Amino acid sequence: MTNPNRTVPDAATATPSLIALDWGTTSLRAYLFDTRGALLETRSRAAGVMHVPAGGAHAFDAVFEGACGDWLDRAGPVPVLAAGMVGSAQGWREAPYVAVPAGADALAAGLVTVTTSRGATVSIVPGVIATGDLPDVMRGEETQIFGALAGDPLLDADRSGMLIGLPGTHAKWAWVKDGLIERFQTYMTGELFAALRDHTILGRTMRTPVSPDRAAFVRGVSVARGAQRTGLLATIFSTRTLGLTDRLAADAQGDYLSGLLIGHELNALAAMLGERGASLANQPLLLIGDDGLCARYVDALQVFGCTHARVVAHATERGLWRIASRAGLVRAEDGTPVHADQ
Amino acid sequence: MTNPNRTVPDAATATPSLIALDWGTTSLRAYLFDTRGALLETRSRAAGVMHVPAGGAHAFDAVFEGACGDWLDRAGPVPVLAAGMVGSAQGWREAPYVAVPAGADALAAGLVTVTTSRGATVSIVPGVIATGDLPDVMRGEETQIFGALAGDPLLDADRSGMLIGLPGTHAKWAWVKDGLIERFQTYMTGELFAALRDHTILGRTMRTPVSPDRAAFVRGVSVARGAQRTGLLATIFSTRTLGLTDRLAADAQGDYLSGLLIGHELNALAAMLGERGASLANQPLLLIGDDGLCARYVDALQVFGCTHARVVAHATERGLWRIASRAGLVRAEDGTPVHADQ
Repeated sequence: MTNPNRTVPDAATATPSLIALDWGTTSLRAYLFDTRGALLETRSRAAGVMHVPAGGAHAFDAVFEGACGDWLDRAGPVPVLAAGMVGSAQGWREAPYVAVPAGADALAAGLVTVTTSRGATVSIVPGVIATGDLPDVMRGEETQIFGALAGDPLLDADRSGMLIGLPGTHAKWAWVKDGLIERFQTYMTGELFAALRDHTILGRTMRTPVSPDRAAFVRGVSVARGAQRTGLLATIFSTRTLGLTDRLAADAQGDYLSGLLIGHELNALAAMLGERGASLANQPLLLIGDDGLCARYVDALQVFGCTHARVVAHATERGLWRIASRAGLVRAEDGTPVHADQ
Repeated sequence: MTNPNRTVPDAATATPSLIALDWGTTSLRAYLFDTRGALLETRSRAAGVMHVPAGGAHAFDAVFEGACGDWLDRAGPVPVLAAGMVGSAQGWREAPYVAVPAGADALAAGLVTVTTSRGATVSIVPGVIATGDLPDVMRGEETQIFGALAGDPLLDADRSGMLIGLPGTHAKWAWVKDGLIERFQTYMTGELFAALRDHTILGRTMRTPVSPDRAAFVRGVSVARGAQRTGLLATIFSTRTLGLTDRLAADAQGDYLSGLLIGHELNALAAMLGERGASLANQPLLLIGDDGLCARYVDALQVFGCTHARVVAHATERGLWRIASRAGLVRAEDGTPVHADQ
């Protein structure tokens, strides 16, 4: 495969071939690739979809020009690929969801395009929807998942089925097999933690620790693991009662509560695996996301007997390159499309 | 028994015998009883423990004088009994918790007293604590529970074991037998609902309905009942995804989410009962609390096959009278203590 970031050529002399955007709710990250899929330059702006001023397409166009206009000046008419909430109804142009089971080819086939004021064509990756009684959706994570799957050592696991976790504000867990996202579930773990800490009685006795309290976090995970039937609504109150009874220090309460919530998330994941005759202990499993948060999940998974979780780096840019390749947006200098997973 | 509110004598001529206070986090309610336990007058002030200005005992004394001073002027040195967060570490005087199993006698024995500036003695009811790996606490609810148990028709059920639910910001479910609170659990259902509605993405697509949407509420309860293993963190996200897919109107999303949370609370309760070989379908069950909220719980319990939940009125004032009687604070005009449950 062609691995972004593995080689960084001289940005001044290499030939740009793709501008890729990870344009989410809170931020915009832009990547400039050369013709072999190596990264020439990256940029980040606090210009997420929720921060783009009202005004529809013109406002997105202006943010894009501000972030990438000089790249286009320099590179000429290179293709642009964008993933994330930029394709939602609140984004630049809506890219209708692709239904599970969904592979990279379906995403490439579902691209929608918008033409910028300078005439550049921006292709937007569709999100993925799991229909059914309780539908679920993702936008952006599908691109990261296909980026994580782009590594050779994973292909065997992919053939027998693999779990991919994407911790965060809205954590996603996806079940992937044969290069297809078969099913997935969103857990509002990160956002619930923030709401509990900042807007309920639980936050009133918390003190921010000097550094994260790993033991308190693991304690919370263990308590949740043993309290699956008691449930989240009751166990979270123990953050307060353990404090009231001098058994949990104020500066340990935040990490304990974080452990409780992530533990309940893993309870649900373990139950889902159990229904399929699998278990966390022997399930191939990748994590994608912020390093610190992924490290917490590695600790939490160990409480559930899973010692082989592996954190995948650069999944976003790998995925963007891979989808651009599948869609024929990027070609090698000899004119052959470069497939990131070949 | 002597039933507060059953008869309301002429307040100007009857003899006051007890001032009782339900002094919680957000409000103070005061009750003036005659010598037979009938209510002469009630008052309510937005002067909960969290609103009492800093300054410790003097501040509580001043609020109490403002609320009840004229009663004391008129009645002379009648006893005063207070329950609720007024007995917490942030209250007027801390009344240490009584451990489960706890009966009305233990509460009476655990009263602590404070003397006001005018020389009145205020007795404060202790809260109840369930010790163990995950401790739990209540302050105020114990008084309501013993008020609910004061009715004759309930005594048979009490002898075989009864569930008492107290919906609210922090919902409590207590298991009571032979007049003792044997165990209980706090569910942060109400506070979590408010935090999710007001401080997460779920609230952004909600519109307040003209009147509560009972069908959406029951739908949420049913979804939660069928998603015990999926868990709360994942099912709450369906509030958004059902909206995104045009299957849940904006003005139904709040009641749906409320149903999801209460449904998960009842999942946990049903699991707890299951461990004891009991079930919600045939378990004697009382509800204490706000009428509208209790009505929602009656609907939710029906989804779980429980059709016999009964809402108990006036539990707070009944409980205050009963504990005052047990403690010997009130006596009939002939000098015999009046026991509310005799």
